[in-house]
Amino acid sequence: MTSPQRKSFGSDNHAGAHPAVLSALTAANAGDATAYGEDPLTAHAVGRLREAFGAADAFLVFGGTAANILGLSLLLRPFEAVICAESAHLNGDECGATERALGSKLLTVPTPDGKLTPDLIVSRLAGHGNPHRVQPRAVEIAQATEVGTCYTLGQLQEIRACCDAHDLLLYLDGARLANAAAYLGCTLAELAAPAHVLSFGGTKNGALGAEAVIVMNEAAAAAAPFQRMQLMQLASKMRFLAAQLIALLDDDLWRQNADQANRMARRLADGLAGLPELRLAYPAQANGVFAVLPAEQARRLQQDWNFHVLADLDDRESLVRWMTAFDTTEADVDAFITAIRETAMSGHAVS
Amino acid sequence: MTSPQRKSFGSDNHAGAHPAVLSALTAANAGDATAYGEDPLTAHAVGRLREAFGAADAFLVFGGTAANILGLSLLLRPFEAVICAESAHLNGDECGATERALGSKLLTVPTPDGKLTPDLIVSRLAGHGNPHRVQPRAVEIAQATEVGTCYTLGQLQEIRACCDAHDLLLYLDGARLANAAAYLGCTLAELAAPAHVLSFGGTKNGALGAEAVIVMNEAAAAAAPFQRMQLMQLASKMRFLAAQLIALLDDDLWRQNADQANRMARRLADGLAGLPELRLAYPAQANGVFAVLPAEQARRLQQDWNFHVLADLDDRESLVRWMTAFDTTEADVDAFITAIRETAMSGHAVS
Amino acid sequence: MTSPQRKSFGSDNHAGAHPAVLSALTAANAGDATAYGEDPLTAHAVGRLREAFGAADAFLVFGGTAANILGLSLLLRPFEAVICAESAHLNGDECGATERALGSKLLTVPTPDGKLTPDLIVSRLAGHGNPHRVQPRAVEIAQATEVGTCYTLGQLQEIRACCDAHDLLLYLDGARLANAAAYLGCTLAELAAPAHVLSFGGTKNGALGAEAVIVMNEAAAAAAPFQRMQLMQLASKMRFLAAQLIALLDDDLWRQNADQANRMARRLADGLAGLPELRLAYPAQANGVFAVLPAEQARRLQQDWNFHVLADLDDRESLVRWMTAFDTTEADVDAFITAIRETAMSGHAVS
Amino acid sequence: MTSPQRKSFGSDNHAGAHPAVLSALTAANAGDATAYGEDPLTAHAVGRLREAFGAADAFLVFGGTAANILGLSLLLRPFEAVICAESAHLNGDECGATERALGSKLLTVPTPDGKLTPDLIVSRLAGHGNPHRVQPRAVEIAQATEVGTCYTLGQLQEIRACCDAHDLLLYLDGARLANAAAYLGCTLAELAAPAHVLSFGGTKNGALGAEAVIVMNEAAAAAAPFQRMQLMQLASKMRFLAAQLIALLDDDLWRQNADQANRMARRLADGLAGLPELRLAYPAQANGVFAVLPAEQARRLQQDWNFHVLADLDDRESLVRWMTAFDTTEADVDAFITAIRETAMSGHAVS
Repeated sequence: MTSPQRKSFGSDNHAGAHPAVLSALTAANAGDATAYGEDPLTAHAVGRLREAFGAADAFLVFGGTAANILGLSLLLRPFEAVICAESAHLNGDECGATERALGSKLLTVPTPDGKLTPDLIVSRLAGHGNPHRVQPRAVEIAQATEVGTCYTLGQLQEIRACCDAHDLLLYLDGARLANAAAYLGCTLAELAAPAHVLSFGGTKNGALGAEAVIVMNEAAAAAAPFQRMQLMQLASKMRFLAAQLIALLDDDLWRQNADQANRMARRLADGLAGLPELRLAYPAQANGVFAVLPAEQARRLQQDWNFHVLADLDDRESLVRWMTAFDTTEADVDAFITAIRETAMSGHAVS
Repeated sequence: MTSPQRKSFGSDNHAGAHPAVLSALTAANAGDATAYGEDPLTAHAVGRLREAFGAADAFLVFGGTAANILGLSLLLRPFEAVICAESAHLNGDECGATERALGSKLLTVPTPDGKLTPDLIVSRLAGHGNPHRVQPRAVEIAQATEVGTCYTLGQLQEIRACCDAHDLLLYLDGARLANAAAYLGCTLAELAAPAHVLSFGGTKNGALGAEAVIVMNEAAAAAAPFQRMQLMQLASKMRFLAAQLIALLDDDLWRQNADQANRMARRLADGLAGLPELRLAYPAQANGVFAVLPAEQARRLQQDWNFHVLADLDDRESLVRWMTAFDTTEADVDAFITAIRETAMSGHAVS
Repeated sequence: MTSPQRKSFGSDNHAGAHPAVLSALTAANAGDATAYGEDPLTAHAVGRLREAFGAADAFLVFGGTAANILGLSLLLRPFEAVICAESAHLNGDECGATERALGSKLLTVPTPDGKLTPDLIVSRLAGHGNPHRVQPRAVEIAQATEVGTCYTLGQLQEIRACCDAHDLLLYLDGARLANAAAYLGCTLAELAAPAHVLSFGGTKNGALGAEAVIVMNEAAAAAAPFQRMQLMQLASKMRFLAAQLIALLDDDLWRQNADQANRMARRLADGLAGLPELRLAYPAQANGVFAVLPAEQARRLQQDWNFHVLADLDDRESLVRWMTAFDTTEADVDAFITAIRETAMSGHAVS
Repeated sequence: MTSPQRKSFGSDNHAGAHPAVLSALTAANAGDATAYGEDPLTAHAVGRLREAFGAADAFLVFGGTAANILGLSLLLRPFEAVICAESAHLNGDECGATERALGSKLLTVPTPDGKLTPDLIVSRLAGHGNPHRVQPRAVEIAQATEVGTCYTLGQLQEIRACCDAHDLLLYLDGARLANAAAYLGCTLAELAAPAHVLSFGGTKNGALGAEAVIVMNEAAAAAAPFQRMQLMQLASKMRFLAAQLIALLDDDLWRQNADQANRMARRLADGLAGLPELRLAYPAQANGVFAVLPAEQARRLQQDWNFHVLADLDDRESLVRWMTAFDTTEADVDAFITAIRETAMSGHAVS
């Protein structure tokens, strides 16, 4: 267990909510509001999302996994499959929700950095037209990825072109879309343009729990109200989801929050330079630092700090994930850097 | 559209959140907390729920439909069916979530008052052992029902006895369980005892959005963590669901809230006595008044007041639903009674 | 148990296969054939079916339930529902295959004679556009129905017009389509024209086991090869399904078989005229006689004859189903009539 | 297209049915038989299968994919996953039937020879108890495998021991179980003993189309009648499935058929020895020869012979599959060997 005063680097959802989000909930609480999204606050949130993303429509849901499943439900029939990275949240962290809710198979591809490429996508297209095989229909990418990397706008456009060439639809898991936009210095609309459907995550960005499914095309949106309800994602007091997202959109709070988290990850990565037994597994582009370090050092660090060991690479090395959040401070990072350096040195002394 | 100053009688989820719930969210926001329910606040909420219900375990989820589906998922295989009232929320208001998420069929029974009886349950048992028929396995009842009635403790025990006699499992939809407990003057544990699994609704009781699945038996609980995740109901920042439920459990706020709502429904029903063209469709036991009145009067009332017309019984009469909430006041009710009496009189004048 | 020499009136699938069907299997067995329908015999069968039905395409499957599910899979998304008669095979005899395989709910309607009408269909349309409700999308009718009645061509056209007016698609369960065509004296194409998708049952018509899904519209057919495989209905040695259907189509053997079965049902119904305690529950149009007779008489008849008691109407009367097949003879029927008359008389003697 | 007189090496299901199977159908056609398996022939077939496999129960189905899905349905809940070889039929050739019908995810492992080992199984166990991950619950192996290899009895026992150690259940895809038994010289019961549930394939062994799900344990069998119906695999005229399997069991015809196919594969493999540009990809243990040869040679051979190119390994080489059947003759094989040798030589001449 982590001592309470040390910042968790375990996940960006270990953080609480941004104060502006809490204030928005209180403000939203005045008076009655028609349920299930038929209220003015929801209409306002949807309007803001449509505008920010250049989208046809937007649908609020409770969580990130649900956003992915609802989004994909608009694109797939059960015999149609999703091409995604082996490391995708969809594949490894959603307890098979795609398979159960949609009946669809995932066609996974190992990637060097969590990112699909046109070549990797094309490598999974075999069996088109063959009734014994599921039919590749959607491509799923995460922006930022599960390993903290970001697609450039050029890479997104190349993937969309590949999709168009092969009659595929592009779904973008945007649980950390804000972090990607902050890293790339681009708008949400620029990130959304190449996708057919995407999600926009509020929870890791400072909400209590609120996500949106963004639909770029009017036709795909028609089924969304029914899919959302049948997939158990229609909030009765939806104004409280709406209020959270509006708070994040106001004054681009989402970008400030993401910037802070990204800068803290960058500061952490930079602060580890020169440690001889530690190396970054992936470039620290969004709000995560993925490092390989001695397994013994990782174990000792975990006694005081909250983070995940993703894999023991061999007897001697571990791959770890250090996430930063909107409320991670420079002091938090510096204290953690110090701890890492100390465990590194004491490790040397011991061995 | 309803003018903002008039209280909505459209649904108990048109109300906002109780101030104590909002305060609890703010309090819960201090510092980091491990995600996905591995935090002290969730442990506390689960402990409180186990204690209050005499339950083996409890699982927090986002919404009421999801609570029903998760609860039933612990009891059913896809070829097993649910016996429920034709008027059940499960049947008419969840967009087929049971059929899709569980693959299970509902075996519905018309009821005079929204309540199943042993005789009605037994009427749907034909086909046991016949592979052409789905196999009745769960009985679903709502407490309070969709039409505002409540099972007595004796009736619940009779239904459980019927289930035991026929190898059936009892699921109780408790979206308004608090209202039933308040009406009956009993504990939550007394309501839960006859069930195998039930839900406890916080949302209609004053939460922003928080429900719990209560599992009475250790064995049935084992699958719940995985079913909850696969059914897209595992909140990442679960402390915020926990905080809401704890606020409702503290000082029996849930009972105060339910009492207030129930008393306001009773006041409304009583205040309509003597209107010659209006009659109650069901006894007003929980927090709803279901009335039959001239269709023309219902239409005129809806110009100023928010409520649902459930059915047009014929050209002349409508069945309407008037719901009260934890924050409905005596003044709200009295103003509404006045409006109903006025539209009744003016109706007479016109005709 | 029935003695072996007495013809079963239990079901038309108690009969074996027509000799021409068996011969066709032997003929089809010569040499190799590419599997999974890529063989000349399957191409021939599909061509013959397209021609006979005026259809865009046809897909062979193993059984009648599967034909229904595959057919409906071409028309429905999981939140879309099927309007059907309460007595539909789909509803009562397929163990919830629709709910599980498609996730779709059935919206059932009680009918006087197993037949939907535009009015009955329209009675189930409430909730269109309401996300809390499944969305009616397909209408399913059986031709002939489960209770041996047939829609006239005019009635089919009225139902199709109703579907068109309400944006519904028409699926026709044709497990006994041959019997309906024989009763109406019309072509298969005339029966198929009002439908979007239908099934054509070979099994009850003299095959060992072979059914076809007939798709009237090119666009709906595109998904069928994949749905068929994923729904576990792609026969590897498909030539043997094809051979059975070709044998039934050759020289209109299907119509001869259906005619014989229908005439035997008619003969049975006619032969029971004048029995004071027996009445027909439905007109004997296809190959079934549904009768109400004293429960005690039904029990005594079952000692020697194989048939189903569908329901005990009260202590004294039973509803029974007597089915005839392509190989039921006049002697079979006359022997059964004699037995019914004898049990009727002896019943009188006893009472 | 292949000329009609040349034997297909494309698949063992390109062959027709064994004459004894056709005779059995004719014999089974005498008189009426109660439908849906309530007939004496089905009882006889089930009895024979129970005896042959030492099994608790057996359930006849139409096809091999369905047998796999029905078998797994007895072992899995939707959040539970199947560990299988990447090359498994379940994974690559069933159009995602597992994902759709069961909602379960497949956890695939690359294998050198189509065979799982305890080590490979254990490599997929991460995430046990973690609600974000599907829970490994069943291990699926094929005997013989998709690439013509067979598990030894010792290997099967090691896998079962691994399953027992990790609370896993073993499902065995026996579409070519006869070929494995013939190769190993063992009984069906010896192959079945380590499994919890398995399939026994009749179709590739000389049936028109008949498979059985063999359940080793009484408790697992209880759900099978309902799962079979809901999964659309309950044959109405089941006697015709039963007759096929009885014909194969009589006088161990299944073993004779498998022996013939296996010997022809062995003869083919042996006859290719010494060809400098051709090598076997896997040992030819069952009834398939998997070879790597020049791509140009494969293309030329396909002009006259029916077989599958599984993969183009690079510009110059292809992996091909040559399957033999119960009716493949020495003359067929020798003619094919001659053709392969000739295309090899002419290939040399050309280049």
